[in-house]
Amino acid sequence: METPQLDLPQLLIIRPPTFPNFFKDLLRDKYHLLDPVESGLPTHQFLKIHGHSVRALVSVGPGPVTAEIIGYLPVLALVVASGAGVDHIDLAECHRRGIVVTNVGDSFSEDVADYAVGLLIDVLRGMSTSDRFVRAGLWPVKGNFPLGSKVGARRVGIVGLGSIGSLTAKRLEAFGCSIAYNSRTKKPSVHYPYYSSVRELAANCDVLIVCCALTNETYHIINKDVMKALGKQGVIINVGRGCLIDEKELVQFLVQGEIGGAGLDVFEDEPNVPKELYGLDNVVLSPHKAVATPESLALARQMVLDNLQAFFSDKPVLTPVKV
Amino acid sequence: METPQLDLPQLLIIRPPTFPNFFKDLLRDKYHLLDPVESGLPTHQFLKIHGHSVRALVSVGPGPVTAEIIGYLPVLALVVASGAGVDHIDLAECHRRGIVVTNVGDSFSEDVADYAVGLLIDVLRGMSTSDRFVRAGLWPVKGNFPLGSKVGARRVGIVGLGSIGSLTAKRLEAFGCSIAYNSRTKKPSVHYPYYSSVRELAANCDVLIVCCALTNETYHIINKDVMKALGKQGVIINVGRGCLIDEKELVQFLVQGEIGGAGLDVFEDEPNVPKELYGLDNVVLSPHKAVATPESLALARQMVLDNLQAFFSDKPVLTPVKV
Repeated sequence: METPQLDLPQLLIIRPPTFPNFFKDLLRDKYHLLDPVESGLPTHQFLKIHGHSVRALVSVGPGPVTAEIIGYLPVLALVVASGAGVDHIDLAECHRRGIVVTNVGDSFSEDVADYAVGLLIDVLRGMSTSDRFVRAGLWPVKGNFPLGSKVGARRVGIVGLGSIGSLTAKRLEAFGCSIAYNSRTKKPSVHYPYYSSVRELAANCDVLIVCCALTNETYHIINKDVMKALGKQGVIINVGRGCLIDEKELVQFLVQGEIGGAGLDVFEDEPNVPKELYGLDNVVLSPHKAVATPESLALARQMVLDNLQAFFSDKPVLTPVKV
Repeated sequence: METPQLDLPQLLIIRPPTFPNFFKDLLRDKYHLLDPVESGLPTHQFLKIHGHSVRALVSVGPGPVTAEIIGYLPVLALVVASGAGVDHIDLAECHRRGIVVTNVGDSFSEDVADYAVGLLIDVLRGMSTSDRFVRAGLWPVKGNFPLGSKVGARRVGIVGLGSIGSLTAKRLEAFGCSIAYNSRTKKPSVHYPYYSSVRELAANCDVLIVCCALTNETYHIINKDVMKALGKQGVIINVGRGCLIDEKELVQFLVQGEIGGAGLDVFEDEPNVPKELYGLDNVVLSPHKAVATPESLALARQMVLDNLQAFFSDKPVLTPVKV
């Protein structure tokens, strides 16, 4: 183990044991890193010993920041998330304690939007499916492959018109798609039609792209009623969080042909994917990777560093999350 | 066999035996259809009997219109292609004989452009590959999937800036890609940088999207030198024709990691795909289907009908091809 540099500010690292500390090389020259996983101690025991003077922590990946963990940290003032989503952080407890929470802002938004569009083209035009068809040697045997359907003819409903949703809409406009959206409130500067109800949005669209934040209000926002309103030809793309969709219902709707298809980067119980989906040709399955390119990770890492530096220089953080 | 309506204008159907006559239902009320495949006779024998008074023919799919076939048709004045490409039609012989050739204009361009973008996202972000990874049950076993690379950071070179190339460029601009192009001549109304040499274009780009027509000049336009200029991270997307690329070289470059990846909808010897590609994760393989959605096929069918109707009404055809 390396000698900790005790004159540097302490920084607690919260990560799942299976998750590498992506930030170690970037942080260890500037901070005295406290990493329970590296210590080998159970987290609560580690925090009992080291937690009393920790003012800032970095949550790496889905590293959970629970009320229990926060309870061990009496002077905690900053939680830095290494991604865009903060559903693994107890925001209510942070609010109560006056702890500032940051994410990486829009660092990943372009990549997620690109992926959402890619999943949609894939589902509509059967790209992954036809790749499997060719690799299985079926082209010479079975001949022509079934037709897909036209991207530009689709009416696309964006569920959550934040930075990812807006960038997705911008891309799909270039394909000729018409766009509508649902979000908490109507956005005055946006010209797309607004639906205050997701069910109404689904009833007026061919495609739903789910990219809102996961909160208590948005848990299972795509439920049975929404899927029914979307209809038999409808397509659902999820690049948000698995729990935004009632996955059990979605599987039933897909298996029974009650919706047309789905492109899913996220699932309710990752890395476990419902096995019923494995045999379906109208779905594209992806291991929670919409977010990730080296270019956006570099942006995100810089944002983590910049937020920490701002905090320890008593300046306002760059990308605070509303808690 | 149905009774032919002898008072209707004759229309010869040229199609490969494996290709259905997509147009039969649309055409048989207005034309007296002559279909060698349906007759059961060898084509040359059928044409010897029926060819002398044929003024117009429809080439369905890749149905070849050779000088030999044209030789059996002394009064032929119109060849209607059912797609955008006319490389299966002997244009020189048509020119010599003063025969008008039509294609379906831009009917398929949007679909092909959509597919080109889809293939590019797929190759860069590893979408088909990660779908295979999930379906094989590897996510819980192997954990994180390798990173892809950012679409918008790519410099894209369009080889052939016709309607497909222009629509592809328009879509990719919305992703933040920078665009350059090669075509026979610089287009005065286009602001993208122009390269008169494909090798030069490749040397200045990360991605080549091949969507020019196949002619004697463009055969193997993507050769060893072009691939070398594109470099180890380079990606090639082909939605044009298989013979635009020296496929043997492409396979070598891919297998040896001398280029970064490829998305291929077309091949030199369809439906045969080089088996060396089956095991590669940096390629996406597609059975010549970029063109096909029900929406664009409906447009194309209408264009076939409209060209025929114009011809038989002594009006100018709508979408003549330069012969």
